[in-house]
Amino acid sequence: MRIAFQGEAGAYSEMAAVALFGDGAEPVPCSSFEAVFEVVEAGDCERGVVPIENSLAGSVYRNYDLLLRHNLYLVAEYNLRISHNLIAAPGVLLEDVRRVYSHPQALAQCERSLADLSNVEIIPSYDTAGAVKIIRDVGFRDAAAIASRRAAELYEMHVLQADFEDIAGNYTRFVVLNQEQIESHGESKTSLAFAGINKPGLLFRSLGVFAQRDIDLTKIESRPQKGKPWEYIFYLDFAGNLAEERCARAIDHLREIATLLRVFGSYPRAAEEWS
Amino acid sequence: MRIAFQGEAGAYSEMAAVALFGDGAEPVPCSSFEAVFEVVEAGDCERGVVPIENSLAGSVYRNYDLLLRHNLYLVAEYNLRISHNLIAAPGVLLEDVRRVYSHPQALAQCERSLADLSNVEIIPSYDTAGAVKIIRDVGFRDAAAIASRRAAELYEMHVLQADFEDIAGNYTRFVVLNQEQIESHGESKTSLAFAGINKPGLLFRSLGVFAQRDIDLTKIESRPQKGKPWEYIFYLDFAGNLAEERCARAIDHLREIATLLRVFGSYPRAAEEWS
Repeated sequence: MRIAFQGEAGAYSEMAAVALFGDGAEPVPCSSFEAVFEVVEAGDCERGVVPIENSLAGSVYRNYDLLLRHNLYLVAEYNLRISHNLIAAPGVLLEDVRRVYSHPQALAQCERSLADLSNVEIIPSYDTAGAVKIIRDVGFRDAAAIASRRAAELYEMHVLQADFEDIAGNYTRFVVLNQEQIESHGESKTSLAFAGINKPGLLFRSLGVFAQRDIDLTKIESRPQKGKPWEYIFYLDFAGNLAEERCARAIDHLREIATLLRVFGSYPRAAEEWS
Repeated sequence: MRIAFQGEAGAYSEMAAVALFGDGAEPVPCSSFEAVFEVVEAGDCERGVVPIENSLAGSVYRNYDLLLRHNLYLVAEYNLRISHNLIAAPGVLLEDVRRVYSHPQALAQCERSLADLSNVEIIPSYDTAGAVKIIRDVGFRDAAAIASRRAAELYEMHVLQADFEDIAGNYTRFVVLNQEQIESHGESKTSLAFAGINKPGLLFRSLGVFAQRDIDLTKIESRPQKGKPWEYIFYLDFAGNLAEERCARAIDHLREIATLLRVFGSYPRAAEEWS
């Protein structure tokens, strides 16, 4: 099965793809999130894996926008713990390192660890896994990169220091894109987006359709719409499956209140929570 | 008045500070968001300006975390339109440009415009304004940076192309930090955070305290708490002022429901919406 993801081989998105689909699947690198949606829609890849939310950085609005613009469904989710490693060529020692390459977000998450290394220059690069690849390709013996353990393994490089991030508990929630809905059983979650005119009580009435049916919400987020200052989009996840009658009825009820409603589908709830 | 902001001179945060406080104020660059909170708390700066939400990238969770950890109040907000410019030394022409420097997020927002330039290398850097400074300091005549118009003016550089971003309508909402609350009049907004155990209906009951008093919500966002998988933090803004009795009563009512409540203060509502 071909699984599209954004980034280079060794990217965190690829780790999520492998965790979800096993080593038998073939992860397919794409240059942008848009490309991931497009290859799944075109049928060139069977599934796509994109990040939707990070425990430090917040929701990935870009992928919510793409969900609204494309005609795909969510069929799974996965919470990946983002753990950064300081990576160099085999034989290179910590005291040899004079330059550290990585994506600025990763560099920022390792600020204190980097400050502990003396006499080191910090060099931002496009991509965490890409930084490892550069060091390998050029053959640097005085440089390191910050990236995933998978990137180290893939490029046959050495982890100088694991858990290099300053704050533990950095999780990214990934979702799996598919052309069609897939029936799921057991504990489920359902994701949807709806829009409405922001008058007092809109959100209260909208949430009422779930509260009245004892349906537990696991995410709610409001977002002003560009060009429509008084109209909001809400992103909502709830615990439950569209196959359950109370959930189907809640959706029907919500349709009476919202001006727009897109249901992205039901899928098995990830075992690991952000914790 | 000294206004702390994160970044180099010419950063978008500095533009927000100047738009809010005029040219008479003294913007004070800080190396991190944390440093902004610290200098305001210590009284070294009278105010701090930090981004809290972007129309493409979402909420800046890092600054919400810092709001919860520090004892400061919100006293103003400002919506800044983020408009990117391609900037080079005076006399340098578009066809001379062989390298473009900027922060990866700005580079990503200008992807299509960059693709239109032929034979150009893209080089990520830490900071948009910092990229302009480097080109000026080194005296590059074959490089350009993507940054604000203010950065171009400050470093006496030339705007080769304005509105360089692919998608217009990129807004960042900034808030102003202060040691104390400031009484505000006219149309106001109030920001708060609260936490509670995620059982069905918690959010519905919480929002009920506002709906019952016809108070209009302008933002709601839920966020799982690290280490407490069943406890959520909610960030909420409403249209209204703590000086109004119905608002004060809504807050009292919310205190009965929430396990934690922090009110960050009331402030004048920004004239310009994301639109």
